[in-house]
Amino acid sequence: MHRTRVRIVEDALDANNTIAQANRADFDRAGVAVVNFMSAPGAGKTALLERVAGDLPGVRLGVLEGDVQGSLDADRLAARHVPVTQLNTDPGFGGECHLDANMVRSALPDVPLAEIDLLVVENVGNLVCPAEFRIGEDVRVMVSSVTEGEDKPLKYPLMFRTCDLVLVNKVDLLPHLDYDISKFLHHLDSVHPGVERMMVSARTGEGVDAWRDWLLRIAARERVPA
Amino acid sequence: MHRTRVRIVEDALDANNTIAQANRADFDRAGVAVVNFMSAPGAGKTALLERVAGDLPGVRLGVLEGDVQGSLDADRLAARHVPVTQLNTDPGFGGECHLDANMVRSALPDVPLAEIDLLVVENVGNLVCPAEFRIGEDVRVMVSSVTEGEDKPLKYPLMFRTCDLVLVNKVDLLPHLDYDISKFLHHLDSVHPGVERMMVSARTGEGVDAWRDWLLRIAARERVPA
Repeated sequence: MHRTRVRIVEDALDANNTIAQANRADFDRAGVAVVNFMSAPGAGKTALLERVAGDLPGVRLGVLEGDVQGSLDADRLAARHVPVTQLNTDPGFGGECHLDANMVRSALPDVPLAEIDLLVVENVGNLVCPAEFRIGEDVRVMVSSVTEGEDKPLKYPLMFRTCDLVLVNKVDLLPHLDYDISKFLHHLDSVHPGVERMMVSARTGEGVDAWRDWLLRIAARERVPA
Repeated sequence: MHRTRVRIVEDALDANNTIAQANRADFDRAGVAVVNFMSAPGAGKTALLERVAGDLPGVRLGVLEGDVQGSLDADRLAARHVPVTQLNTDPGFGGECHLDANMVRSALPDVPLAEIDLLVVENVGNLVCPAEFRIGEDVRVMVSSVTEGEDKPLKYPLMFRTCDLVLVNKVDLLPHLDYDISKFLHHLDSVHPGVERMMVSARTGEGVDAWRDWLLRIAARERVPA
Protein backbone atom coordinates (compact mmCIF):
# COMPACT_ATOMS: atom_id res chain seq x y z
CA MET A 1 0.00 0.00 0.00
CA HIS A 2 2.77 2.40 0.88
CA ARG A 3 4.61 1.68 -2.34
CA THR A 4 1.43 2.44 -4.30
CA ARG A 5 1.07 5.70 -2.44
CA VAL A 6 4.65 6.66 -3.30
CA ARG A 7 3.99 5.93 -6.98
CA ILE A 8 0.81 8.04 -6.98
CA VAL A 9 2.80 10.89 -5.42
CA GLU A 10 5.47 10.56 -8.12
CA ASP A 11 2.89 10.61 -10.93
CA ALA A 12 1.23 13.67 -9.41
CA LEU A 13 4.59 15.44 -9.25
CA ASP A 14 5.26 14.65 -12.93
CA ALA A 15 1.89 16.14 -13.92
CA ASN A 16 2.63 19.13 -11.70
CA ASN A 17 5.96 19.76 -13.38
CA THR A 18 4.33 19.84 -16.82
CA ILE A 19 1.90 22.53 -15.71
CA ALA A 20 4.67 24.41 -13.89
CA GLN A 21 6.59 24.61 -17.19
CA ALA A 22 3.51 26.09 -18.89
CA ASN A 23 3.24 28.69 -16.10
CA ARG A 24 6.93 29.48 -16.42
CA ALA A 25 6.57 30.00 -20.18
CA ASP A 26 3.73 32.47 -19.57
CA PHE A 27 5.76 34.34 -16.95
CA ASP A 28 8.81 34.48 -19.24
CA ARG A 29 6.74 35.75 -22.16
CA ALA A 30 5.42 38.55 -19.95
CA GLY A 31 8.93 39.31 -18.63
CA VAL A 32 7.79 38.74 -15.06
CA ALA A 33 10.18 37.31 -12.46
CA VAL A 34 8.44 34.95 -10.05
CA VAL A 35 9.34 34.23 -6.43
CA ASN A 36 7.83 31.23 -4.60
CA PHE A 37 7.76 32.56 -1.02
CA MET A 38 7.42 29.94 1.71
CA SER A 39 7.61 29.48 5.47
CA ALA A 40 5.91 27.99 8.51
CA PRO A 41 2.75 29.76 9.72
CA GLY A 42 3.49 33.12 11.28
CA ALA A 43 7.16 33.33 10.29
CA GLY A 44 6.62 36.77 8.76
CA LYS A 45 6.21 36.42 5.00
CA THR A 46 3.52 39.09 4.70
CA ALA A 47 5.33 41.46 7.06
CA LEU A 48 8.52 41.12 4.98
CA LEU A 49 6.54 41.94 1.84
CA GLU A 50 4.89 44.94 3.51
CA ARG A 51 8.40 46.19 4.32
CA VAL A 52 9.50 46.28 0.67
CA ALA A 53 6.19 47.13 -1.05
CA GLY A 54 6.43 50.68 -2.37
CA ASP A 55 10.22 50.65 -2.09
CA LEU A 56 11.22 48.80 -5.27
CA PRO A 57 12.26 51.60 -7.66
CA GLY A 58 11.51 50.74 -11.28
CA VAL A 59 9.96 47.38 -10.39
CA ARG A 60 6.20 46.88 -10.31
CA LEU A 61 5.38 44.28 -7.66
CA GLY A 62 2.38 41.96 -7.74
CA VAL A 63 1.42 39.33 -5.21
CA LEU A 64 -0.46 36.04 -5.55
CA GLU A 65 -1.66 35.22 -2.07
CA GLY A 66 -2.14 31.54 -1.16
CA ASP A 67 -4.22 30.67 1.88
CA VAL A 68 -6.46 27.82 2.94
CA GLN A 69 -9.15 30.36 3.81
CA GLY A 70 -9.65 34.09 4.08
CA SER A 71 -7.91 37.14 2.66
CA LEU A 72 -6.21 38.69 5.72
CA ASP A 73 -2.76 38.85 4.12
CA ALA A 74 -4.12 40.02 0.77
CA ASP A 75 -5.94 42.84 2.55
CA ARG A 76 -2.74 43.90 4.31
CA LEU A 77 -0.86 44.09 1.01
CA ALA A 78 -3.69 45.72 -0.92
CA ALA A 79 -3.57 48.49 1.70
CA ARG A 80 -0.03 49.15 0.43
CA HIS A 81 -1.36 49.56 -3.13
CA VAL A 82 0.11 46.28 -4.33
CA PRO A 83 -2.04 44.42 -6.88
CA VAL A 84 -2.96 41.23 -5.03
CA THR A 85 -4.74 38.14 -6.33
CA GLN A 86 -6.22 35.86 -3.68
CA LEU A 87 -6.00 32.10 -4.18
CA ASN A 88 -7.80 30.03 -1.54
CA THR A 89 -7.16 26.28 -1.48
CA ASP A 90 -10.32 25.52 0.50
CA PRO A 91 -13.15 25.84 -2.03
CA GLY A 92 -12.58 23.55 -5.02
CA PHE A 93 -9.15 22.31 -3.98
CA GLY A 94 -10.09 20.29 -0.89
CA GLY A 95 -8.30 22.52 1.62
CA GLU A 96 -4.82 21.79 0.31
CA CYS A 97 -1.85 22.65 2.53
CA HIS A 98 0.23 24.03 -0.34
CA LEU A 99 -0.02 25.62 -3.76
CA ASP A 100 0.62 23.52 -6.82
CA ALA A 101 1.15 24.49 -10.46
CA ASN A 102 -2.47 23.83 -11.40
CA MET A 103 -3.85 26.06 -8.65
CA VAL A 104 -1.51 28.86 -9.71
CA ARG A 105 -2.53 28.31 -13.35
CA SER A 106 -6.22 28.62 -12.41
CA ALA A 107 -5.48 32.02 -10.85
CA LEU A 108 -3.38 33.41 -13.72
CA PRO A 109 -6.30 35.03 -15.59
CA ASP A 110 -6.69 37.30 -12.55
CA VAL A 111 -3.01 38.22 -12.28
CA PRO A 112 -2.19 41.42 -14.23
CA LEU A 113 1.03 40.05 -15.75
CA ALA A 114 1.30 42.90 -18.28
CA GLU A 115 1.35 45.47 -15.47
CA ILE A 116 3.96 43.94 -13.17
CA ASP A 117 7.64 43.00 -13.29
CA LEU A 118 7.89 40.85 -10.19
CA LEU A 119 5.31 38.39 -8.89
CA VAL A 120 5.71 37.09 -5.37
CA VAL A 121 3.60 34.00 -4.73
CA GLU A 122 3.00 33.77 -0.99
CA ASN A 123 2.52 30.06 -0.41
CA VAL A 124 0.44 28.43 2.34
CA GLY A 125 2.25 28.48 5.70
CA ASN A 126 3.75 24.99 5.85
CA LEU A 127 7.31 23.60 5.78
CA VAL A 128 6.48 20.26 4.13
CA CYS A 129 4.37 20.07 0.97
CA PRO A 130 4.98 23.53 -0.57
CA ALA A 131 8.59 22.42 -1.13
CA GLU A 132 7.42 19.45 -3.22
CA PHE A 133 5.50 21.38 -5.87
CA ARG A 134 7.11 23.65 -8.45
CA ILE A 135 4.66 26.34 -9.56
CA GLY A 136 6.69 27.86 -12.41
CA GLU A 137 8.85 30.09 -10.22
CA ASP A 138 12.29 31.49 -11.04
CA VAL A 139 13.48 31.38 -7.44
CA ARG A 140 12.40 30.10 -4.05
CA VAL A 141 12.72 32.15 -0.91
CA MET A 142 11.93 30.83 2.53
CA VAL A 143 11.55 32.56 5.86
CA SER A 144 12.72 30.83 9.03
CA SER A 145 11.86 32.64 12.24
CA VAL A 146 14.37 32.41 15.07
CA THR A 147 11.45 31.65 17.39
CA GLU A 148 11.03 28.26 15.66
CA GLY A 149 14.30 26.87 17.01
CA GLU A 150 17.63 25.89 15.50
CA ASP A 151 16.68 22.37 14.42
CA LYS A 152 14.27 23.16 11.59
CA PRO A 153 16.69 22.53 8.66
CA LEU A 154 17.16 18.98 9.95
CA LYS A 155 13.42 18.37 10.41
CA TYR A 156 12.25 19.89 7.11
CA PRO A 157 15.30 19.35 4.88
CA LEU A 158 13.54 19.47 1.50
CA MET A 159 12.30 23.01 2.15
CA PHE A 160 15.73 24.29 3.17
CA ARG A 161 17.51 22.32 0.43
CA THR A 162 15.42 23.59 -2.49
CA CYS A 163 15.39 27.31 -1.72
CA ASP A 164 17.65 29.99 -3.16
CA LEU A 165 17.53 32.38 -0.21
CA VAL A 166 16.80 31.92 3.49
CA LEU A 167 15.52 34.96 5.38
CA VAL A 168 16.21 34.42 9.09
CA ASN A 169 13.49 36.64 10.54
CA LYS A 170 12.66 38.13 13.96
CA VAL A 171 16.33 38.56 14.87
CA ASP A 172 15.21 41.44 17.14
CA LEU A 173 14.00 38.72 19.53
CA LEU A 174 17.39 37.00 19.80
CA PRO A 175 18.26 38.61 23.18
CA HIS A 176 15.12 37.03 24.64
CA LEU A 177 15.52 33.50 23.26
CA ASP A 178 17.65 30.45 23.98
CA TYR A 179 18.56 30.31 20.29
CA ASP A 180 22.08 29.74 19.08
CA ILE A 181 22.22 31.20 15.58
CA SER A 182 25.55 29.52 14.83
CA LYS A 183 23.87 26.18 15.54
CA PHE A 184 21.05 27.05 13.10
CA LEU A 185 23.55 28.06 10.41
CA HIS A 186 25.51 24.86 10.97
CA HIS A 187 22.32 22.79 10.43
CA LEU A 188 21.41 24.94 7.41
CA ASP A 189 24.80 24.33 5.81
CA SER A 190 24.53 20.62 6.53
CA VAL A 191 21.40 20.35 4.34
CA HIS A 192 22.15 23.17 1.85
CA PRO A 193 25.82 24.16 1.98
CA GLY A 194 26.45 27.84 1.34
CA VAL A 195 22.87 28.80 0.48
CA GLU A 196 22.42 32.57 0.55
CA ARG A 197 21.00 33.79 3.87
CA MET A 198 20.08 37.13 5.43
CA MET A 199 19.39 38.07 9.04
CA VAL A 200 16.33 40.29 9.07
CA SER A 201 13.65 41.76 11.29
CA ALA A 202 10.40 42.79 9.66
CA ARG A 203 9.59 44.52 12.94
CA THR A 204 12.64 46.77 13.27
CA GLY A 205 13.63 46.89 9.60
CA GLU A 206 17.05 45.33 10.23
CA GLY A 207 18.35 43.65 7.07
CA VAL A 208 15.36 44.74 5.00
CA ASP A 209 17.54 46.78 2.60
CA ALA A 210 19.47 43.67 1.62
CA TRP A 211 16.21 41.77 1.07
CA ARG A 212 14.86 44.59 -1.12
CA ASP A 213 18.09 44.74 -3.15
CA TRP A 214 17.96 40.98 -3.66
CA LEU A 215 14.43 41.28 -5.09
CA LEU A 216 15.56 44.12 -7.37
CA ARG A 217 18.36 41.92 -8.73
CA ILE A 218 15.94 39.04 -9.37
CA ALA A 219 13.55 41.36 -11.22
CA ALA A 220 16.40 42.88 -13.29
CA ARG A 221 17.61 39.44 -14.33
CA GLU A 222 14.23 38.67 -15.89
CA ARG A 223 13.65 42.02 -17.53
CA VAL A 224 12.79 41.75 -21.23
CA PRO A 225 14.71 44.23 -23.41
CA ALA A 226 12.26 46.93 -24.53
CA MET B 1 -10.95 17.99 -11.94
CA HIS B 2 -11.30 19.84 -8.65
CA ARG B 3 -14.57 18.09 -7.88
CA THR B 4 -12.86 14.75 -8.50
CA ARG B 5 -10.10 15.75 -6.17
CA VAL B 6 -12.58 16.67 -3.45
CA ARG B 7 -14.28 13.28 -3.83
CA ILE B 8 -10.96 11.43 -3.59
CA VAL B 9 -10.20 13.38 -0.42
CA GLU B 10 -13.58 12.43 1.05
CA ASP B 11 -13.09 8.73 0.25
CA ALA B 12 -9.64 8.81 1.81
CA LEU B 13 -11.08 10.39 4.96
CA ASP B 14 -13.74 7.66 5.19
CA ALA B 15 -11.08 4.97 4.97
CA ASN B 16 -9.02 6.84 7.54
CA ASN B 17 -11.93 6.97 9.99
CA THR B 18 -12.40 3.22 9.78
CA ILE B 19 -8.77 2.61 10.72
CA ALA B 20 -8.94 5.31 13.39
CA GLN B 21 -11.80 3.42 15.03
CA ALA B 22 -9.71 0.23 15.05
CA ASN B 23 -6.86 2.15 16.70
CA ARG B 24 -9.26 3.61 19.23
CA ALA B 25 -10.58 0.15 20.10
CA ASP B 26 -7.02 -1.06 20.72
CA PHE B 27 -6.26 1.95 22.91
CA ASP B 28 -9.49 1.49 24.90
CA ARG B 29 -8.80 -2.21 25.43
CA ALA B 30 -5.38 -1.32 26.82
CA GLY B 31 -6.86 1.45 28.99
CA VAL B 32 -4.58 4.02 27.38
CA ALA B 33 -5.73 7.61 26.93
CA VAL B 34 -4.49 9.12 23.67
CA VAL B 35 -3.72 12.76 22.92
CA ASN B 36 -3.23 13.96 19.34
CA PHE B 37 -0.75 16.81 19.88
CA MET B 38 -0.50 19.34 17.05
CA SER B 39 1.00 22.71 16.17
CA ALA B 40 2.96 24.66 13.58
CA PRO B 41 6.70 23.91 13.36
CA GLY B 42 8.61 25.17 16.37
CA ALA B 43 5.59 26.12 18.50
CA GLY B 44 6.96 24.11 21.41
CA LYS B 45 5.23 20.71 21.50
CA THR B 46 8.33 18.78 22.50
CA ALA B 47 9.37 21.40 25.06
CA LEU B 48 5.91 21.25 26.65
CA LEU B 49 6.19 17.46 26.87
CA GLU B 50 9.67 17.69 28.35
CA ARG B 51 8.19 19.96 31.04
CA VAL B 52 5.66 17.37 32.23
CA ALA B 53 7.61 14.13 31.60
CA GLY B 54 8.57 12.66 34.96
CA ASP B 55 5.98 14.80 36.77
CA LEU B 56 2.78 12.81 36.15
CA PRO B 57 2.26 10.91 39.43
CA GLY B 58 0.58 7.56 38.89
CA VAL B 59 0.46 7.98 35.13
CA ARG B 60 2.93 6.24 32.84
CA LEU B 61 3.54 8.42 29.80
CA GLY B 62 4.49 7.16 26.35
CA VAL B 63 5.10 9.19 23.21
CA LEU B 64 4.64 8.39 19.53
CA GLU B 65 6.79 10.87 17.68
CA GLY B 66 5.74 11.88 14.16
CA ASP B 67 8.29 13.58 11.92
CA VAL B 68 8.98 13.75 8.22
CA GLN B 69 12.61 12.82 8.93
CA GLY B 70 14.95 12.31 11.83
CA SER B 71 14.53 11.58 15.53
CA LEU B 72 15.59 14.83 17.21
CA ASP B 73 12.42 15.19 19.30
CA ALA B 74 12.33 11.47 20.16
CA ASP B 75 15.91 11.72 21.40
CA ARG B 76 15.02 14.69 23.61
CA LEU B 77 12.15 12.78 25.21
CA ALA B 78 14.04 9.50 25.51
CA ALA B 79 16.61 11.45 27.52
CA ARG B 80 13.78 12.05 30.04
CA HIS B 81 13.20 8.27 30.30
CA VAL B 82 9.93 8.40 28.39
CA PRO B 83 9.29 5.39 26.15
CA VAL B 84 9.26 6.91 22.67
CA THR B 85 8.35 5.31 19.35
CA GLN B 86 9.57 7.15 16.25
CA LEU B 87 7.29 7.31 13.22
CA ASN B 88 8.84 8.94 10.14
CA THR B 89 6.54 9.81 7.25
CA ASP B 90 9.40 10.02 4.75
CA PRO B 91 10.31 6.38 4.02
CA GLY B 92 7.30 4.41 2.80
CA PHE B 93 4.76 7.18 3.27
CA GLY B 94 5.97 9.63 0.59
CA GLY B 95 7.01 12.37 3.02
CA GLU B 96 3.51 13.09 4.28
CA CYS B 97 2.91 16.36 6.13
CA HIS B 98 0.69 14.75 8.77
CA LEU B 99 0.00 11.49 10.55
CA ASP B 100 -3.02 9.46 9.53
CA ALA B 101 -4.69 6.47 11.19
CA ASN B 102 -2.89 3.96 9.00
CA MET B 103 0.56 5.35 9.81
CA VAL B 104 -0.25 5.23 13.51
CA ARG B 105 -1.56 1.68 13.11
CA SER B 106 1.67 0.62 11.41
CA ALA B 107 3.61 1.88 14.44
CA LEU B 108 1.40 0.29 17.12
CA PRO B 109 3.37 -2.99 17.35
CA ASP B 110 6.27 -0.87 18.63
CA VAL B 111 4.24 1.10 21.20
CA PRO B 112 4.29 -0.61 24.64
CA LEU B 113 0.56 -0.12 25.29
CA ALA B 114 0.55 -2.51 28.25
CA GLU B 115 3.17 -0.42 30.04
CA ILE B 116 1.68 3.06 29.64
CA ASP B 117 -1.50 4.90 30.68
CA LEU B 118 -1.22 7.95 28.49
CA LEU B 119 0.04 8.10 24.91
CA VAL B 120 0.83 11.49 23.43
CA VAL B 121 1.11 11.39 19.65
CA GLU B 122 3.25 14.32 18.58
CA ASN B 123 2.03 15.05 15.06
CA VAL B 124 4.07 16.58 12.23
CA GLY B 125 4.45 20.36 12.65
CA ASN B 126 1.70 21.70 10.37
CA LEU B 127 -1.56 23.59 10.94
CA VAL B 128 -3.45 22.20 7.93
CA CYS B 129 -3.60 18.46 7.21
CA PRO B 130 -3.06 17.00 10.71
CA ALA B 131 -6.47 18.46 11.63
CA GLU B 132 -8.15 16.47 8.83
CA PHE B 133 -7.09 12.99 9.95
CA ARG B 134 -8.39 11.29 13.09
CA ILE B 135 -5.85 8.77 14.36
CA GLY B 136 -7.94 7.15 17.10
CA GLU B 137 -7.28 9.81 19.74
CA ASP B 138 -9.46 10.65 22.75
CA VAL B 139 -8.59 14.33 22.68
CA ARG B 140 -6.79 16.86 20.53
CA VAL B 141 -4.46 19.45 21.95
CA MET B 142 -2.86 22.17 19.89
CA VAL B 143 -0.09 24.62 20.67
CA SER B 144 -0.22 28.14 19.27
CA SER B 145 2.86 30.23 19.91
CA VAL B 146 2.34 33.95 20.50
CA THR B 147 5.20 34.57 18.06
CA GLU B 148 2.96 33.31 15.21
CA GLY B 149 0.60 36.29 15.41
CA GLU B 150 -3.02 36.77 16.45
CA ASP B 151 -4.63 35.84 13.13
CA LYS B 152 -3.89 32.10 13.07
CA PRO B 153 -7.39 30.88 14.17
CA LEU B 154 -8.85 32.69 11.15
CA LYS B 155 -6.25 31.30 8.74
CA TYR B 156 -6.29 27.69 9.98
CA PRO B 157 -9.85 27.36 11.35
CA LEU B 158 -10.18 23.57 11.12
CA MET B 159 -7.21 23.05 13.44
CA PHE B 160 -8.52 25.48 16.05
CA ARG B 161 -12.11 24.27 15.68
CA THR B 162 -11.42 20.57 16.19
CA CYS B 163 -9.16 20.73 19.24
CA ASP B 164 -10.15 20.27 22.88
CA LEU B 165 -7.43 22.42 24.40
CA VAL B 166 -5.32 25.29 23.08
CA LEU B 167 -1.96 25.89 24.75
CA VAL B 168 -0.90 29.47 24.06
CA ASN B 169 2.86 29.07 24.39
CA LYS B 170 5.87 31.39 24.74
CA VAL B 171 3.92 33.97 26.77
CA ASP B 172 7.27 34.97 28.33
CA LEU B 173 7.95 36.75 25.02
CA LEU B 174 4.81 38.92 25.16
CA PRO B 175 6.64 42.03 26.45
CA HIS B 176 8.83 41.91 23.33
CA LEU B 177 6.10 41.38 20.72
CA ASP B 178 3.41 43.46 19.03
CA TYR B 179 0.88 40.78 19.94
CA ASP B 180 -2.52 41.57 21.36
CA ILE B 181 -3.62 38.46 23.22
CA SER B 182 -7.20 39.69 23.54
CA LYS B 183 -7.32 39.88 19.74
CA PHE B 184 -6.07 36.29 19.48
CA LEU B 185 -8.67 35.08 22.00
CA HIS B 186 -11.38 36.95 20.13
CA HIS B 187 -10.40 35.18 16.89
CA LEU B 188 -10.17 31.85 18.74
CA ASP B 189 -13.69 32.25 20.14
CA SER B 190 -14.99 33.21 16.71
CA VAL B 191 -13.96 29.82 15.29
CA HIS B 192 -14.31 27.69 18.45
CA PRO B 193 -16.37 29.50 21.09
CA GLY B 194 -15.30 28.78 24.65
CA VAL B 195 -12.68 26.14 23.84
CA GLU B 196 -10.44 25.49 26.85
CA ARG B 197 -7.21 27.46 26.68
CA MET B 198 -4.12 27.92 28.84
CA MET B 199 -1.39 30.55 28.74
CA VAL B 200 1.93 28.74 29.14
CA SER B 201 5.66 29.12 28.74
CA ALA B 202 7.70 25.97 28.29
CA ARG B 203 10.75 28.16 28.85
CA THR B 204 9.86 29.67 32.24
CA GLY B 205 7.42 26.99 33.41
CA GLU B 206 4.51 29.44 33.65
CA GLY B 207 1.18 27.62 33.34
CA VAL B 208 2.83 24.22 33.12
CA ASP B 209 1.12 22.95 36.31
CA ALA B 210 -2.30 23.49 34.74
CA TRP B 211 -1.19 21.64 31.60
CA ARG B 212 0.12 18.73 33.68
CA ASP B 213 -3.12 18.57 35.73
CA TRP B 214 -5.16 18.55 32.52
CA LEU B 215 -3.18 15.54 31.26
CA LEU B 216 -3.68 13.78 34.60
CA ARG B 217 -7.45 14.28 34.31
CA ILE B 218 -7.48 12.90 30.75
CA ALA B 219 -5.52 9.84 31.84
CA ALA B 220 -7.81 9.29 34.87
CA ARG B 221 -10.89 9.43 32.66
CA GLU B 222 -9.64 6.51 30.60
CA ARG B 223 -8.37 4.35 33.42
CA VAL B 224 -9.72 0.79 33.33
CA PRO B 225 -10.97 -0.44 36.74
CA ALA B 226 -8.46 -3.00 38.03
